This record gives sequence, structure tokens and C-alpha cells, in this order.
Amino acid sequence: MKNYFSIHDIDSLDTWVNEAIALKTAPLSHNELGKNKTIGMLFFNPSLRTRLSTQKAAINLGMNVMVMNFTGEGWSLEYGDGTVMDQGNSEHVKEAAQVVSQYCDVLAIRAFAKLESKDEDYSEKVLKSFIKYATIPVVNMESATGHPLQALTDAITITEHKKIDKPKVVLSWAPHPKALPQAVANSFVEMMQKMDANFVITHPVGFELASEITKEVPIDYNQENAFKDADFIYVKNWSSYHDYGKVGSDKSWQITKEKMNLTNNAKFMHCLPVRRNVVIDDAVIDSKNSVVIEQANNRTYAAQLVLKKILENR
Amino acid sequence: MKNYFSIHDIDSLDTWVNEAIALKTAPLSHNELGKNKTIGMLFFNPSLRTRLSTQKAAINLGMNVMVMNFTGEGWSLEYGDGTVMDQGNSEHVKEAAQVVSQYCDVLAIRAFAKLESKDEDYSEKVLKSFIKYATIPVVNMESATGHPLQALTDAITITEHKKIDKPKVVLSWAPHPKALPQAVANSFVEMMQKMDANFVITHPVGFELASEITKEVPIDYNQENAFKDADFIYVKNWSSYHDYGKVGSDKSWQITKEKMNLTNNAKFMHCLPVRRNVVIDDAVIDSKNSVVIEQANNRTYAAQLVLKKILENR
Amino acid sequence: MKNYFSIHDIDSLDTWVNEAIALKTAPLSHNELGKNKTIGMLFFNPSLRTRLSTQKAAINLGMNVMVMNFTGEGWSLEYGDGTVMDQGNSEHVKEAAQVVSQYCDVLAIRAFAKLESKDEDYSEKVLKSFIKYATIPVVNMESATGHPLQALTDAITITEHKKIDKPKVVLSWAPHPKALPQAVANSFVEMMQKMDANFVITHPVGFELASEITKEVPIDYNQENAFKDADFIYVKNWSSYHDYGKVGSDKSWQITKEKMNLTNNAKFMHCLPVRRNVVIDDAVIDSKNSVVIEQANNRTYAAQLVLKKILENR
Repeated sequence: MKNYFSIHDIDSLDTWVNEAIALKTAPLSHNELGKNKTIGMLFFNPSLRTRLSTQKAAINLGMNVMVMNFTGEGWSLEYGDGTVMDQGNSEHVKEAAQVVSQYCDVLAIRAFAKLESKDEDYSEKVLKSFIKYATIPVVNMESATGHPLQALTDAITITEHKKIDKPKVVLSWAPHPKALPQAVANSFVEMMQKMDANFVITHPVGFELASEITKEVPIDYNQENAFKDADFIYVKNWSSYHDYGKVGSDKSWQITKEKMNLTNNAKFMHCLPVRRNVVIDDAVIDSKNSVVIEQANNRTYAAQLVLKKILENR
Repeated sequence: MKNYFSIHDIDSLDTWVNEAIALKTAPLSHNELGKNKTIGMLFFNPSLRTRLSTQKAAINLGMNVMVMNFTGEGWSLEYGDGTVMDQGNSEHVKEAAQVVSQYCDVLAIRAFAKLESKDEDYSEKVLKSFIKYATIPVVNMESATGHPLQALTDAITITEHKKIDKPKVVLSWAPHPKALPQAVANSFVEMMQKMDANFVITHPVGFELASEITKEVPIDYNQENAFKDADFIYVKNWSSYHDYGKVGSDKSWQITKEKMNLTNNAKFMHCLPVRRNVVIDDAVIDSKNSVVIEQANNRTYAAQLVLKKILENR
Repeated sequence: MKNYFSIHDIDSLDTWVNEAIALKTAPLSHNELGKNKTIGMLFFNPSLRTRLSTQKAAINLGMNVMVMNFTGEGWSLEYGDGTVMDQGNSEHVKEAAQVVSQYCDVLAIRAFAKLESKDEDYSEKVLKSFIKYATIPVVNMESATGHPLQALTDAITITEHKKIDKPKVVLSWAPHPKALPQAVANSFVEMMQKMDANFVITHPVGFELASEITKEVPIDYNQENAFKDADFIYVKNWSSYHDYGKVGSDKSWQITKEKMNLTNNAKFMHCLPVRRNVVIDDAVIDSKNSVVIEQANNRTYAAQLVLKKILENR
């Protein structure tokens, strides 16, 4: 593996998940591996879990960390080939990526979807440009269309909590007052197709994800029906893919205790941050079945495993 | 001590002050104590001294440091119980605090008074919410109503400079063009009640601090009278507690050389930043009696002692 | 050397350049020198290369790094002597510099020209105030009128690439849509006067740099003539010094392949960031003669050498 751009960069999911779980019991067991290696973490968007867990993962491996917010601390970047740069952007990604590659051993980048143009977002302009021009490995800390560190975290969390070999896992859309990217949902859907799971997606009509991603995964437009006998309920809002960026705030999709009661005592998962009493009721996230905090903890070990793989591969 | 929320978390002031003074002579003497321990420093407000001295203190103890500005780098937080989060805030402190606790060993937080509502500020919503939900120790890097790292610094500085066992210490209000919190003054007042000092507060009528804090401390509305025979003049502006947040800019309270001449050759103290020639005259802060720079230096050792106590207690 | 304020702080250029080139082959060879030493990096402006290369240089020397953006993270600073500080600024540089000096062993500061007043910019108010009041060495990470870390980088890069003892080096102005400082050009002009080079400056009439800096350096207002037989073309826009801050966007000065063809197969240099197809054509920066990426890499070793000199001198 050179880069960790998407979950397709995982060569053997089972091995990775088991290695991550092992790291969790001994986080400092490879703290010489990253000695005198430097990770540059570049943020084009806000971040709490990703920022701190990836930093912690690097520290656990003995790496040096340089964090940079591109919003304000650096120069606004141009991505177009051949652009006459007489507008707002001061630096081309071609230089920025090559230059930063010389100061670091690994680059980690967060750049959300702007939700203005489907074509632009799904071209993965920012991450793919950095990958194209960087001369060091690049890690995706959530791009326009994917969040593979989150999806690896989710695979770890499901593995830890599952009681049967092939659990029923439901990805449920839920309402949100703002337009959110499809990145987390996309990567989770891809991950569930790699895991041994009975996987169903449920969302309102019009909120179908890209069919290139969902492929043969069954979609149930009836949320209550989908929840029946579920072992895991994974909740996430996303804005419309087809009517690109359209907000979805239908309150009838909010996750309630009553809906959770339809499941097989399912664990409740969410990537966070989550808006309480909009996406989910307090009663659900505060219940003993909610594993959102443990899930967030696993972010450290997912990131640490990815960095370990990259460092071992150098 | 689990948390360092206020100076009431100090179990033995004399011991602490002496330990801090000892740390100052050998700052690296415990540089293995923090090995593989991580402090997360969360800022909701600007900070120079607190930011750098606390970071330096952690480094001196061998800790890893992760700094995060919540203003822009993270998600805006909700603090209310049961809130329907369909407005501006993206994440509840309940998740944020629990999650961050998993990446760090100690949390340090700065969250100023907003000076819009006395009830809200004096409820210490931000710090108390983090303390409630965090599963690791929390250090107050200035909250809405207190600045206990500053007050410990001040106790160290007074101990170093006092020439008699029970010096006369005067907290003098001074004018300022903006509305400032009462936090520094509150913690200093509480600290002086713990020290062996002849302590007096002087301020204009209407600028009384909370009586729950000042208790039996004498208040003299005549600044020049209060200054007589003082060994330490501690200057600070604060906005009105009773007419909550009202600016106080009465120039007749500005600290001048003439007023300092009324004292017993008093040392001049201020927590900084200070507006020259508004709060105090250049002639005072630039005089040999001004200990403001040494006082700022002691911030490192106050923070280092607090972190040391927390690490030793784990 | 106490401070690295300008290239005049270099005592022996040849020695420095050779030491920097040696550091490049063994960046970790002095990684004990900075042990338990802390650099404070203060930014008043955006920075990519300077931010990350200086941080990396400090890490290579084993130093601790504390980074602070003064824009937002700290207090706005006052620089005037005797000012009545009743306006926007909260803290005087006199305190800030003294205080920060107590938490760090070296200070590095970036503070651009504001291009509002020639007198103010050329007084180097910010850097000189920090140097005046700081009690530790100060490194210039680009000030109002100079960028000596860049100029040292440039000397290293030219030394590495020159094929004859006294190459022809041309500093060429090029157009830009915004008003840029003269800092990089100034320091490069000063540096070329220290190196064994046949040095020429070319720019449109009205864009003369300060004569105190250019001294006897020949100025050719004919760009194509200047390019003839050049071994190095160093490109940089700057706004007018005489009509202070006036934008220069004359497209006929843009660097093209045709112009480069007039040279003696010259290496192309630029400090970056650069606006493609405005300052220079893609064909030039993407050509094999472009050394801009290697030049940016040398930023690390220039900074590392300066920090090493400072640490050795303590």
C-alpha cells in the first residue's frame, strides 16, 4: 500500500481489523517504528476526532507531527491544469504537494465535499491532486466522497461487538438541518460489502447513494421494516446525491427508542458529531446499546494501523 | 486532586508554592513523569501566556501536547440537556468530552465569560460540562469566573518577593475601554484569603465582586487610602458584577507613579496583557518595582506543578 | 551571531553554505544539540514553506516546537512608545516579547509588510521591536523588508547548481495581480552582492528597489537583454517601492519559454508560492531547468543551519 485513499487500499480486511484490535491492547508496541519520521496533517475543514486521533496514533508510533490548517495558515490552492492564476488562488497544488513532500514522510489530508457540483466533488480533486503530485504516501482524513479511516474504525467496532458471524447491519439515513456530504455513508457501504454481514440501507426516496457504490446492496425505503432483527444500526445523514446537495430533514426518520425496539437489541453506531434530538433521540444515544464513544476511541487504532502499514512499507 | 478547577483544589498551599519554587530551579527534574502521557489543550478564546506556559510545562514533564482551537478548528458545542440541536451547534459537549478523554490523559480548557448573562457565566457551563463528562482530569486555563493557574502563579510570586510574613496586599481595580471578565480578580481574591496577608480590595462603587467570593475581605472605595503602606499592588480591571458586564473606564483610577509613592515601596503585579497608559502608566510598569515579567514566568511553574500533581495522582 | 535578522548576520557565507549542504546529507547529525531547547514560532501572516521547513529544521535538531498564530490565537499587539492603549490593541510588544522569551530558547517571527506606509514597513517595527525586547535570539521568518532564510536558501541552491565560479544571475521582476512586498527581492539582492556572481536586475521603469539595497548592482530595463547568457533566472514580483505598494501587472514581463531560450540554459528559480501563467508560463516552471522544488527543500537546511549556529552560540 502506498496511499490510504479508500478502503480498496486495504489488502486483507480481516488481518487489518485483527491487527488494529491488537494495537489497542498495546498502543506503544511499535513506538520506535515512526522515530525520526514526520507526518504532515493538512486540514481544509474542521475536525475533532480525526485531528486528535490521527495525531495520537502518530505519537503512539513515535512520529513527529506537524499540523497545518490550510484555511488561514497557508495559501489558497489552485487545482486546474493550465489555469491562468490571476484570481484568488495563490499557489498551485502541484508545487504545494511536491514541497510538503520534502518536509514530511507521510501526508494526511482532510478536504470535504463542497456540495456545489457533483462532478467536482466526485472527481476528488483535492485528494487526487495531492496524491498525483506528492512524492510520499497520502492518507485520506475524509475527502469529498469517502472517509476510509472512519470505515476501518467501523469494521473494528462491529468486529468487537458482533455476537454472530454474519450480523444484520443497517445503515439508516436520518434527518439533519444542513447539507452534509455522502463521504461517511459511501465508505461505510463499501466496507460492509467487504465484511461478512447481512447489510441493508434504508433512506427516503430520493436519497439513494451513487449506484456505483451501493451496487447490489438492498435498499429498503421503509425504515421500520429495515430495523427488524438488526444487530447493528449505523445512523448517518447525507444530502441528496441525485438532487445534488439537497438537504434532507424529514423528522419521521429520526432515530427513536421505539424504532430501536424493533431490532435484535442492536448496537447503535454513529461517526459523530451528531445533533441530539434531531438525528437521534437522547434516549438512544444515551442507552447502553450505544457504542458511539468506543467507536470514536477506535479511530486512534484505525489511524495507527494505517500509519504502521505505511511506515513498514517504506 | 482529580481536577484543577479552582484554587479550592489545592490541598496545601504552602507545600504547593514551595514545590513550584523548587521546580523553577530544576524544571526538568521530573521529565520522565509525563512520558507517553498526552495533554489536550482546548482553546475557546485567545491566549498567549496560558497557551505557551502550559505547553512548556507539559514539555518539561516529558508529555506530548495536542493543541486545538475550538474556534474554527472543531465543531461548535451544545451544552444544554435535552436540547433539540437544530440550530448552530453541531456537537454536544457530552460526546466531545468523552471522546477527547480517550485520546488524552489530561485536558486543559480555556473558556472565558461571555458577559451576556451572569447566571450563565457563573454556572461555569463550559468547564463544568467538560468536568462532568470527561473521564480524565481537567485543568482550568481560565474559565468564566476563575483563573486558578494565574492565582497559583500570584501566590508563588508574592511568596518570592515578600519581605515580611504578613505583607499588605492590595487588589486595585483600574479602568479599561472594554468589558473584561471577573475571573482573574475572583481567583486572586480567593487566593489571598488562603495566604497570610493583610488583604484589601479597592474599586469604584458599583464594581463590587460577588460577595460569595469577597466574603469578609475589606473593601476601600478610596484608592489612595488603600495604597498606603501596601507591600504589593495587584492591578486588574473587571467589568461590573452587579450591573453585569458594564464597562468601567473611570480614568481617575489609573495607576500612577504618584499613587505607587503612597505605598511601602510596593511591588507592582498584573496578570497581563495590560493596556499601557490606560490601566497603568508606563512609569509604573517600567519601574524596578514592577514584577509583571517574573510573574508571567511563574506561569510555567504553576502549570507544571498542577500537571505534576495530576500525573502523580493517576 | 545573536539574532538572524538579515543576511548581514552571516559571518562567513561560504562556510555557512557548505555547512548547510553538509547538513542536507546528514540532517540528524546534530539531533542532540537542541535537546530540551524550545523554539517559539510566531506567525502574523500565512506561511507554508517557512512554517513547515523551520519546524522540520527544529525537529531535526531535537528541539521542542511551539507554534502560535498571532492572528486570532493571541492578542493584537501595540508597538508605539508611550501610546495610550485605549484602541484595538490589547498588549504591548514590550511585555509580549519579554514574556515569550521566558518560555522559549529561540523565537522565530513572520510579519509581512502592510504596504500602507513605506516608512513604517522599512522601520521593521515588528521584528525590531521583538529583537529589542526579547531576551533570547530572534530569527526572521520574513519581515516587512527582508526574507533572509529564503536568501540563504537561494545561496545554497545556486552553489549546488552553478557550473562556473562566477555565474550570471538575473533577478527578474514579473507581473502579479496583487501588491506584494519587496522582502524576498531585497534579501536576494543583498545576498547576490555577497556571492561571486555576475548579477543583474531587470524590471520595468518605476519598480526600482531601494537604492540603499541595490547599491551598484546594474539594472537593465530590457528584460530580454538581461536574460542573455544568464546561468540563473530568479523570478519575483514586487510592488513599487517608489510609488509605494503600487501593483505591477504588465503582462509583457511574464516569464516565457522564449525568454528562457535567450539564456545559457539557465536554471529557473522562484521562492514560491507562484501564480502559474501569470508570473511564469507552465512550460517554464515545469521544464527540467526549473529548480523551484529543490530550492524549497533547501529551506529546511537553511533554517537548520541558522538554528544550529544560534544553539552553538548559547
